Amino acid sequence: MRFDFTKQRVLAVVAHPDDAEMLCAGTLARAREDGAAIGICVLCQGDKGQTEPVTENLAEVRQAEMATSAGVLGAELLVAGFADGELADMPETRGVLVEIIRQFRPTLMLAHASTDYHADHRAASALAESTSWFCASSGHITSSPSLDQPPALWWMDTVNMSDFSPHFFVDVSEYVELKRQMLRCHQSQLARGADANFSPLEELLLRQCTARGDQAGVKAAEAFRTHRAWKRTGAW
Amino acid sequence: MRFDFTKQRVLAVVAHPDDAEMLCAGTLARAREDGAAIGICVLCQGDKGQTEPVTENLAEVRQAEMATSAGVLGAELLVAGFADGELADMPETRGVLVEIIRQFRPTLMLAHASTDYHADHRAASALAESTSWFCASSGHITSSPSLDQPPALWWMDTVNMSDFSPHFFVDVSEYVELKRQMLRCHQSQLARGADANFSPLEELLLRQCTARGDQAGVKAAEAFRTHRAWKRTGAW
Amino acid sequence: MRFDFTKQRVLAVVAHPDDAEMLCAGTLARAREDGAAIGICVLCQGDKGQTEPVTENLAEVRQAEMATSAGVLGAELLVAGFADGELADMPETRGVLVEIIRQFRPTLMLAHASTDYHADHRAASALAESTSWFCASSGHITSSPSLDQPPALWWMDTVNMSDFSPHFFVDVSEYVELKRQMLRCHQSQLARGADANFSPLEELLLRQCTARGDQAGVKAAEAFRTHRAWKRTGAW
Amino acid sequence: MRFDFTKQRVLAVVAHPDDAEMLCAGTLARAREDGAAIGICVLCQGDKGQTEPVTENLAEVRQAEMATSAGVLGAELLVAGFADGELADMPETRGVLVEIIRQFRPTLMLAHASTDYHADHRAASALAESTSWFCASSGHITSSPSLDQPPALWWMDTVNMSDFSPHFFVDVSEYVELKRQMLRCHQSQLARGADANFSPLEELLLRQCTARGDQAGVKAAEAFRTHRAWKRTGAW
Amino acid sequence: MRFDFTKQRVLAVVAHPDDAEMLCAGTLARAREDGAAIGICVLCQGDKGQTEPVTENLAEVRQAEMATSAGVLGAELLVAGFADGELADMPETRGVLVEIIRQFRPTLMLAHASTDYHADHRAASALAESTSWFCASSGHITSSPSLDQPPALWWMDTVNMSDFSPHFFVDVSEYVELKRQMLRCHQSQLARGADANFSPLEELLLRQCTARGDQAGVKAAEAFRTHRAWKRTGAW
Amino acid sequence: MRFDFTKQRVLAVVAHPDDAEMLCAGTLARAREDGAAIGICVLCQGDKGQTEPVTENLAEVRQAEMATSAGVLGAELLVAGFADGELADMPETRGVLVEIIRQFRPTLMLAHASTDYHADHRAASALAESTSWFCASSGHITSSPSLDQPPALWWMDTVNMSDFSPHFFVDVSEYVELKRQMLRCHQSQLARGADANFSPLEELLLRQCTARGDQAGVKAAEAFRTHRAWKRTGAW
Repeated sequence: MRFDFTKQRVLAVVAHPDDAEMLCAGTLARAREDGAAIGICVLCQGDKGQTEPVTENLAEVRQAEMATSAGVLGAELLVAGFADGELADMPETRGVLVEIIRQFRPTLMLAHASTDYHADHRAASALAESTSWFCASSGHITSSPSLDQPPALWWMDTVNMSDFSPHFFVDVSEYVELKRQMLRCHQSQLARGADANFSPLEELLLRQCTARGDQAGVKAAEAFRTHRAWKRTGAW
Repeated sequence: MRFDFTKQRVLAVVAHPDDAEMLCAGTLARAREDGAAIGICVLCQGDKGQTEPVTENLAEVRQAEMATSAGVLGAELLVAGFADGELADMPETRGVLVEIIRQFRPTLMLAHASTDYHADHRAASALAESTSWFCASSGHITSSPSLDQPPALWWMDTVNMSDFSPHFFVDVSEYVELKRQMLRCHQSQLARGADANFSPLEELLLRQCTARGDQAGVKAAEAFRTHRAWKRTGAW
Repeated sequence: MRFDFTKQRVLAVVAHPDDAEMLCAGTLARAREDGAAIGICVLCQGDKGQTEPVTENLAEVRQAEMATSAGVLGAELLVAGFADGELADMPETRGVLVEIIRQFRPTLMLAHASTDYHADHRAASALAESTSWFCASSGHITSSPSLDQPPALWWMDTVNMSDFSPHFFVDVSEYVELKRQMLRCHQSQLARGADANFSPLEELLLRQCTARGDQAGVKAAEAFRTHRAWKRTGAW
Repeated sequence: MRFDFTKQRVLAVVAHPDDAEMLCAGTLARAREDGAAIGICVLCQGDKGQTEPVTENLAEVRQAEMATSAGVLGAELLVAGFADGELADMPETRGVLVEIIRQFRPTLMLAHASTDYHADHRAASALAESTSWFCASSGHITSSPSLDQPPALWWMDTVNMSDFSPHFFVDVSEYVELKRQMLRCHQSQLARGADANFSPLEELLLRQCTARGDQAGVKAAEAFRTHRAWKRTGAW
Repeated sequence: MRFDFTKQRVLAVVAHPDDAEMLCAGTLARAREDGAAIGICVLCQGDKGQTEPVTENLAEVRQAEMATSAGVLGAELLVAGFADGELADMPETRGVLVEIIRQFRPTLMLAHASTDYHADHRAASALAESTSWFCASSGHITSSPSLDQPPALWWMDTVNMSDFSPHFFVDVSEYVELKRQMLRCHQSQLARGADANFSPLEELLLRQCTARGDQAGVKAAEAFRTHRAWKRTGAW
Repeated sequence: MRFDFTKQRVLAVVAHPDDAEMLCAGTLARAREDGAAIGICVLCQGDKGQTEPVTENLAEVRQAEMATSAGVLGAELLVAGFADGELADMPETRGVLVEIIRQFRPTLMLAHASTDYHADHRAASALAESTSWFCASSGHITSSPSLDQPPALWWMDTVNMSDFSPHFFVDVSEYVELKRQMLRCHQSQLARGADANFSPLEELLLRQCTARGDQAGVKAAEAFRTHRAWKRTGAW
């Protein structure tokens, strides 16, 4: 079996600058290969992912890093600019994301699982869910016109696969090297690998897509769950 | 088996003006038939359920529609008046709902499932849970005296039955026509059926109660889950 | 809320002679009080529930004990006579139980949960499920005619409440003493209480119905799950 | 999104002659449209699906009906010939199914959910699981050579959607009429519709694929779960 | 099997002054016995747990009560001082708890389950989760230095065991009397036992740890679930 | 936290000769280190794990391999000798395993998860469950006397971690090399790695214990679930 992403517009909505690399970059690459439009919306600035010694203008540094990484993938980058550690599914935040969604106009959104490890990831999950509906509701007014219909929504794997029971797997065997290259754009974060409290991200990334591959009979895979809710569940 | 609603006071707490029709109107009719007192508390104004062309005073129009519909059912209508798309389980909002509950004094509350499709439905679910406890806590002061004990709480089906695993079913075979009649009171919403982004609500309502009926061996049914938490779970 | 068991015919299908006492005797008493017909079908002889010193004719002793206990409750006793520790959901065994069901002709069956602690309980669970369908299938021929429609099926709590997530509770506050009296009919088993490997059954019974009562806001309760499968799920 | 079934060999393994119609015929049609090879393996003869008045040679009649229906779909029919109501996941039965699988050589198997309503469906589910492994194990010898690798395995929806939480949906909007036509080949079973104990199958079929369509945003859909086990989970 | 708490620093984070008594005091006592450092962080003042007649300075009274109770256990008491009924997982609140955690420097945190009965318990659960990560993130600055690594996190049982499926049990058979003694320090709350709406807390406490003991083969036990998320799951 | 296995007698019950290596050898090593008695009961001969070219006396070869491997670990080996692919939870098979358990007299049993990938693993799971009760039931007579009380029971991880949600993790960081050494004793199976249909087992073993380690914050871990059923759940 093979997914055909032709004519799709796929938007990954992630919390921090280096989350897409770990959880969905291979799937985005698959979609682009089929001719789909792909985008990454990063909600937080990454300003609390602090290094030692401290990087003063960390948010700026990370914005540059994520732009480079998105360039490697060939994805449009959409930056919401919220502060790390304070993300919440509230009316103002929803308004910002609804407008971003209306600009990209996705047919499919990828978002963090509600069980992921970080409070910002869980807030991003709730935000993606609420805005995937509001973006197509004309009563919710932003600068851009509302979508004709809500996008489908897939939940991404959690970091290190904890407490996530996949519905299906996307074969990303051809894109392991791409994922690694993208991750290496985030130099400020990889530097933290020396820190005792920080797993070497690259090893974690490789082990996760390989272990998911083991579960799905391919070299490497990314795992997802479908969101089952009115107008956000597709039929393939 | 048959539920006996005698002496109950049943309060449905819903997010929007036309949610009770779809998810619990038949059960309320069953309760009324047994002599129970029944009420519908609508939390939001329905002001974002916009039509094309735009209805200027939409909140007013919808208030009239829900009053007509509640009249068809013979239910008391309690209106909280919050704005669409902004409902949240917060102290101020809780205070408003606690006071409404203390006025109606239910023995049983019906509320949205935490997995329902709309952010307001999920907020209404959290609000119903928190206030079902606070309404009987004398430390939480509002105009009306606190209840002697919390009401039981049942979670209602989700719209289109997505991601809802029922605990039990209420036979509403005799009230399909009533549900349809009530829904037809919401003219502003049915008009949206022509809209490509809006399922014809009446067909959806009929298919849902019939499919639930198929699962329960009757012509039509409504599905629920019991809330299992201290003092909100009854024994029948 | 209150269940009305009027006109029901309720059949508990249990593995061993003293299982009904622990898990559903109060509910049967409630049904009888409403005028329902009630029965207990015991599948195994109880011949392995050995005492110290050994009781030679243990199966006979236990048959007498269960007859006395059923008499206390006022329930019809139906004995299948299978050997302890060997119960299985197989064609021959199904035939025996289908015939018993067709003789009693229940509208509601109560059966062990598939997660209960004992292999015979789990086999009884599977048997109850398969025969609740076959009893109404005219292609499965036994001495008695097939039912017009399958009975509803409820899963009973597990012994000591392990790994059982209730859907609903039946108030048995008035029948705690009856449950205790029935249990005391099983003298051969209570004698095992002195045995280091055997929990005093009476304390276990009282603690379970009281703890379930705590969860449901009454003095004592029995917990159940509805079976959700074609023609075995009712609407109340 | 769209599944691409090109080069697949899809084998549905069902318990009774008319199960494929209800649960997976639309998906098989989708696969055939993409050029895939499709087959239906029917495990039981359907000999207990008795009519009134009794059909003497029911198994023969039903074999003819299923051949006609498979012809309408353009699927290869593989008949295992086990007796209704006695199906079990045992060594002998496994051997028969392993040989059938090795003859068809599927890349994807569709099988009943382990929670489906009928004991034969559950046995068919267990059989499909065990044989999906054994068919590719050279230590298990049958007439045909073992597969190079096990097929992927998808669990089909349950009849009337009870107790089944879908992972994903296949769009079968174009094949509703085909499903209906295939069902109409089973004249012996449709005759049972007049029987009080038998839901009119055609209405049930239409309501189920339409309700699943409502959940997935299309006119009609079939729902599935992926089997997550070594070498039976694919990546798409 | 036996847990060895040697060298651990165990911090229970609870919503109200008397929650630790019910849900984890025995486990804390076990840890202290092994030489571990133990602490209780109480998030709310208990100011809404009102008595009849009303206690004017209820928050003060309860602070004294909890200090006495912590003294009986030999635990360090850390008081956050939030108002009852208004607890929320928000940036300001997180900052307060992060600082408390950084002062105690736990290797293991015990926190309310996300399914517990009271809105403050659920908010405390979310807060414990978010801060168990932030406390070890140097980008989140408070007065005390960040931890070298996040503590492990265990979810505590719910009050009356509703909707909680334990992962494991801690044997607290030796500490039932201690739990009772601690609870008796909360005189203001025990006085509410006469209140028709208030279960006698002491009986509830005894029944819960005894019933959990029944499930785990000991006289008394406390039940927990492990939190499975990056860096908060330990290996034993 | 640290498990203390002192005075335990730990018996792993596995389906095939090389299953313990993958799923629990590190935990057994941990137990032995604490002075516990450890054993491995292998239920099947491994006679269907055929190689190419065919090994005539495969069962004998594998018996020698597992003896060597158990020797490396320092575990007692108990061989049940059932044929591959035919294991079932039936009275005769139970009798054999009950006798083996009564000879080893475990306080803790480790057994396959009910969701594991192979029919023999699932049968082994059911067998371990049923016999963990029967071994302490004096009514079930075998050559050896019954146990005074049933052992606790833990479910092991599935092969490749599919569909297994761990309750807890055992730190086996010190025993990765031991696991690898034990696996290398199974030369007949490693030879199959060249086979396109057979994952290189050693890589799979290393990836699984490392990925579980990632989830639990250590270099390598093995994952388990507690069995929650009467007298088979311990308190630690």
